[in-house]
Amino acid sequence: MKLTQDQLDQFETEGWLLLPELFTPEEVDLLRREAVAIYDEQRPEVWREKDGAPRTAFAAHKYNEAFRLLGRHPRMIRPVEQVFGESVYLHQYKINAKSAFTGAVWQWHQDYGTWKRDDGMPEPRAMNISIFLDEVMPINGPLMLVPRSQTAGDLEASHDLETTSYPLWTLDEKTVTRLVEQGGIVAPTGKPGSMLMFHGNLVHGSAGNITPYPRKIVYLTLNACSNHIRTPTRPEFIAHQDFAPIQCVDDDALAKLARSGQKAAA
Amino acid sequence: MKLTQDQLDQFETEGWLLLPELFTPEEVDLLRREAVAIYDEQRPEVWREKDGAPRTAFAAHKYNEAFRLLGRHPRMIRPVEQVFGESVYLHQYKINAKSAFTGAVWQWHQDYGTWKRDDGMPEPRAMNISIFLDEVMPINGPLMLVPRSQTAGDLEASHDLETTSYPLWTLDEKTVTRLVEQGGIVAPTGKPGSMLMFHGNLVHGSAGNITPYPRKIVYLTLNACSNHIRTPTRPEFIAHQDFAPIQCVDDDALAKLARSGQKAAA
Repeated sequence: MKLTQDQLDQFETEGWLLLPELFTPEEVDLLRREAVAIYDEQRPEVWREKDGAPRTAFAAHKYNEAFRLLGRHPRMIRPVEQVFGESVYLHQYKINAKSAFTGAVWQWHQDYGTWKRDDGMPEPRAMNISIFLDEVMPINGPLMLVPRSQTAGDLEASHDLETTSYPLWTLDEKTVTRLVEQGGIVAPTGKPGSMLMFHGNLVHGSAGNITPYPRKIVYLTLNACSNHIRTPTRPEFIAHQDFAPIQCVDDDALAKLARSGQKAAA
Repeated sequence: MKLTQDQLDQFETEGWLLLPELFTPEEVDLLRREAVAIYDEQRPEVWREKDGAPRTAFAAHKYNEAFRLLGRHPRMIRPVEQVFGESVYLHQYKINAKSAFTGAVWQWHQDYGTWKRDDGMPEPRAMNISIFLDEVMPINGPLMLVPRSQTAGDLEASHDLETTSYPLWTLDEKTVTRLVEQGGIVAPTGKPGSMLMFHGNLVHGSAGNITPYPRKIVYLTLNACSNHIRTPTRPEFIAHQDFAPIQCVDDDALAKLARSGQKAAA
């Protein structure tokens, strides 16, 4: 698993890259089943929308074997190491639900703004990764990205505690309009198992989902080890403090677990 | 302007039909400018979202010359007369804003349910028409249709007075899921000036719009004259009571008005 020069160039210029169907249906089916089971649990790591539907589950690698293996999977880790030229560790690990019918909006934001302000991350040398557990379609609330906005730096933002159940540093309409005039908007779609990677300063958001199609994604942040956070203020299950380089599992580790048929619980 | 047999068949089977770029850029530019001017007016026909952004303007044909001409335009009227085999009148006339950044959701519903319950319309022999004033894209809250759901009849619905500023008879999740399993979802997109027609019993809805791209559409209901409403309960500017057949203007009436450069006000 090595990115080509064209892929590296696209990431450098546009700030994002899609790797279609990087994980197999067998691997994704396992992860999807485990995600649903996790959402059914009542635990502090599982956050819900105002109506009770799951919104996001944090740190599933700590309590679920399938997600533990995914968090160390070479097909995900190696490309990011390649971009940064060094080892990476797991800064954040979420399973975002965007539930059928009720999936709520994520307003326009940059992630690095939050990592800097809340976690004390020195540089935007952390990569956002989205792994599609369901098919991501134009109609079920895909992530929308503003290409090339990663070059705009760390933009002024205000802390929105009201719109949804998840506090977020969001951008104002004038800023988003200006960046979209320059770069447009893309909403990468694809089959389950596809992986989207994008720059920590890339402006993104997603609309609500009113369709019967859920749009679960695993949403991880892989931080360059040298760029580890300095002044964490958020709980450990949100912004991890284990800065040791990720040791990859074997490429077939998830597939083996799926075939073992055993319940994947740590 | 005559629909082909293929177009008639598609409407009959699928319940909807898109006529791309039916109106010219010159005609649509005029309508778009006039729509913005109407939204700036404070009048009872202009309804707003909870945050003050315009949601819909009713009955603009009664106070705006450009929209008066559109409401009698042969490119819009003739195809509907062809489908119904008789004259039509204007049952409802809205300009829906779906504003940039703040455009709100329309939950899943059928329109005929409202026309029957609130207006006493005997049969679903009224046609929904959407004329795109802005480009309709996958990302700016397009109408989503459930193809073939028009054959499901008048489905049980509950009156939602809470979700948005506009009361609506909405369908439950189980019903929508069943119909989508059968027919899927389409979200027709297109350039300004395109016209979408769909059956009064076709299930439809639209997600919010968080992009900087507004998605204004003119949304009309043309009712077969013989099917005029019997027991109106809503204000005249919402459910019209002039049941006289529409007399079309000339095909170039809107273009002439655009060229005249005069302010289009009745």
